[in-house]
Amino acid sequence: MAEQSFDLVVLGGGTGGYVAAIRAAQLGLSVAIVEKDKLGGTCLHRGCIPSKALLRSAELFADVKNGENYGVSAEKVSFHLEHAMARKQSIVEKLHRGVEFLMKKNRVEVIRGYGRLMGPSIFSPQAGAVRVENGEESQILTPRFTLIATGSSPRALPGLPFDGKLVLSSDDALQFERLPNSILIVGGGAIGVEWASMLSDFGVQVTLLEFLPRLLPQEDEEVSREVEKILKKRGVAVQTGAKVIPDSFRKQNDGMEIQYDLDGQQISIQADCMMVAVGRSANVDNLGIEATEIEIQRGVIQVDEHYRTREHNIFAIGDVIGGLQLAHVAAHEGIHAVETMAGLHTHPLVYRNIARCTYSRPEVASVGWTESEAKEAGYQLKIGKFPFSSIGKALVHGEAEGFVKMIADRETDDLLGVHIVGPHATDLISEAGLALFVNASAWEIGNMIHPHPTLSETLGEAALAVDGLALHM
Amino acid sequence: MAEQSFDLVVLGGGTGGYVAAIRAAQLGLSVAIVEKDKLGGTCLHRGCIPSKALLRSAELFADVKNGENYGVSAEKVSFHLEHAMARKQSIVEKLHRGVEFLMKKNRVEVIRGYGRLMGPSIFSPQAGAVRVENGEESQILTPRFTLIATGSSPRALPGLPFDGKLVLSSDDALQFERLPNSILIVGGGAIGVEWASMLSDFGVQVTLLEFLPRLLPQEDEEVSREVEKILKKRGVAVQTGAKVIPDSFRKQNDGMEIQYDLDGQQISIQADCMMVAVGRSANVDNLGIEATEIEIQRGVIQVDEHYRTREHNIFAIGDVIGGLQLAHVAAHEGIHAVETMAGLHTHPLVYRNIARCTYSRPEVASVGWTESEAKEAGYQLKIGKFPFSSIGKALVHGEAEGFVKMIADRETDDLLGVHIVGPHATDLISEAGLALFVNASAWEIGNMIHPHPTLSETLGEAALAVDGLALHM
Repeated sequence: MAEQSFDLVVLGGGTGGYVAAIRAAQLGLSVAIVEKDKLGGTCLHRGCIPSKALLRSAELFADVKNGENYGVSAEKVSFHLEHAMARKQSIVEKLHRGVEFLMKKNRVEVIRGYGRLMGPSIFSPQAGAVRVENGEESQILTPRFTLIATGSSPRALPGLPFDGKLVLSSDDALQFERLPNSILIVGGGAIGVEWASMLSDFGVQVTLLEFLPRLLPQEDEEVSREVEKILKKRGVAVQTGAKVIPDSFRKQNDGMEIQYDLDGQQISIQADCMMVAVGRSANVDNLGIEATEIEIQRGVIQVDEHYRTREHNIFAIGDVIGGLQLAHVAAHEGIHAVETMAGLHTHPLVYRNIARCTYSRPEVASVGWTESEAKEAGYQLKIGKFPFSSIGKALVHGEAEGFVKMIADRETDDLLGVHIVGPHATDLISEAGLALFVNASAWEIGNMIHPHPTLSETLGEAALAVDGLALHM
Repeated sequence: MAEQSFDLVVLGGGTGGYVAAIRAAQLGLSVAIVEKDKLGGTCLHRGCIPSKALLRSAELFADVKNGENYGVSAEKVSFHLEHAMARKQSIVEKLHRGVEFLMKKNRVEVIRGYGRLMGPSIFSPQAGAVRVENGEESQILTPRFTLIATGSSPRALPGLPFDGKLVLSSDDALQFERLPNSILIVGGGAIGVEWASMLSDFGVQVTLLEFLPRLLPQEDEEVSREVEKILKKRGVAVQTGAKVIPDSFRKQNDGMEIQYDLDGQQISIQADCMMVAVGRSANVDNLGIEATEIEIQRGVIQVDEHYRTREHNIFAIGDVIGGLQLAHVAAHEGIHAVETMAGLHTHPLVYRNIARCTYSRPEVASVGWTESEAKEAGYQLKIGKFPFSSIGKALVHGEAEGFVKMIADRETDDLLGVHIVGPHATDLISEAGLALFVNASAWEIGNMIHPHPTLSETLGEAALAVDGLALHM
């Protein structure tokens, strides 16, 4: 059996894993990635990128239907899923080739196959060697450090497995060959809201159910209300506080039926199919973890603040350790982990100050504390809120719903959180992210001169509004 | 003759004037604005807002023509200027009503008429009283402070006045009743480039002449090259180093002809009309300045770093003092001036750190030093550059040309300048603006976690590239 040594072996070539590999290579480590499928992982092939490509098609379709207002008229405007899917696929493939190039350029060895951790063995006195199987062949990798970056998979409802036809995961929906006439989306988090927005723009009749009392339950309450209001106005049937009853699932002629509980009432709903977006499960099974001291709790690998497991040479990052389960989080956890391996001094990530984005129409983005979180933590707050509809560039853009909400500490003037719902929110959030990263205050955002006319003026005005000094309000 | 006293009288109700008035009212001053036309001035009625509204129509028209790629097909796609103009006008009117509302809400008295400064008189022993004429009526305002915010007007070529038909200013072009088939645009600064981009998108044959060796001469050289390359690819005939000869202007059947000098050769060009965008002249005439000690040099009012003229109670801000001649600059100069009047301690504006935007396709935005400026100033540089084409969200967006260029001081790591050409550049620049405002370094921008997938990742990568640590390059 072939045996190879590396400074670092990364299990899983998703965003977390391959970015960690690049950073490790920059630091002079010899690196291998073990990947059973394609480099790029969920984010590139089944998540962020393909869904955003389809959302862009949805945005354009909505714009074209509304073009008359702008002086752009057209006849027989229609949407063709196969073209949108082809565009999506070509973007994914281009980026995939890019990742493969980056691995070559950084001299990261990509080993195709299924990798499993080994315990102490004849190959290594410590756990962390990796056995890779690829069909008939297998090989052993003996690294100084091992990084588990195996990601996550869509979680099904209990007792109602995905079948790819009537009960879909978001993975399945990315493979639609034709659009359903109607769909039930279970789960009103970021993924559910994005798909509801997109499919509704494509003309699908969408029902969106959320178990908790509001959509996007991790966002600020006012953001949730604004998104719900706008989605409803666009014809999405939103129902919060709705508990789906998996047992009640029935196949129907040309579709399905299921019941949900709402305040003790059981309500039946029919659709062509349903999509379940109730979270993702860490990929911890069949990894050989049982051969090590690595601890798993509530389904995710336990690590310290430097992403070290109980085995001092084995680290884990990304969705497999739970937490925010976002690609940029995984990437920076990976960077942090390999910098720790290389002996660099690293500061633990401040998760609250990492931005979160939802790419619906309108977009949602936030960073820092929500109002209720900050109140619960005992802060006395000053809050500034400013609507996009008072900003010239938002009117010019044509979608001027939404607002920027800025939350500061009344005692120290520290900025605590920034919440954006509205046009280009996912572009605009990075100014707020930098502000939190460098401990800038709302005063500083408000006194920085935002160019006119830009959407970013909304941040400037919301920051001034924290002290009652907004100019255009 | 009626006489009224105020703490502050503002001459001119453009962006600089009305924002100053709001801030002054917040500070407890009694304020009047004298405006002969409409509140909102050039920016709202003849500049930023209407031109950006038409640029948005141009963007949408381009998107629709390209919709097939996105899965959005349409037949008989056509552009109707009258609808785009109507939309533009409705946005302008909505914002105009907004400004009128703000004046009422802040108890700023708006006095309609033409205001002129008075010297020392029976009304006031010091210069700065204002005589307002409105038809037959006139009144005298005796303020503690006077703020001149009379703005600027498009500058014609010497000996070739605007006629509104063959020789247009940007004001005239905003009143097009139908599109010309061809146009010559003289001046490749922000206004010329925006109009070239827009009219080209509308299907007009555009020739763009610039006297200096490159378009957008105030931007970084690489940005100029990228914009020229993209405009040429879209069919705009760009000629730099071209000196138009005003005397050679001739009316033609259905159009005009003019010559320009290129390296000593005289070249003739014909078009339906020409637009001149070679700068703006400060509105200093017929203001009564000669009755005061206020100094005018090179056509603009001279002020100190707090915008005080030679008359201690008279301040001047905005286009009338020259400089960047941007709405957001005027507004913040106005804020600074009235805060100075109110006795607040104010720090002089750092002009180099104010963002500049050009809303062409692609957008351009920048803040801080260009590479050559920084070199001339004696800095040793570290430069990071990252293309949008390596960023997933840019591919998703569909226009992935351009880059972010970040310039830092090799000795101190200080950030010196950020230059963006590409999608949503005008949204993205504010993160860089904040970085310069709070003295954040490129390291901080690079280590702040930019959400994925967003266009702002390009800034993060360019910042890492400053130290050779970009991840996706």
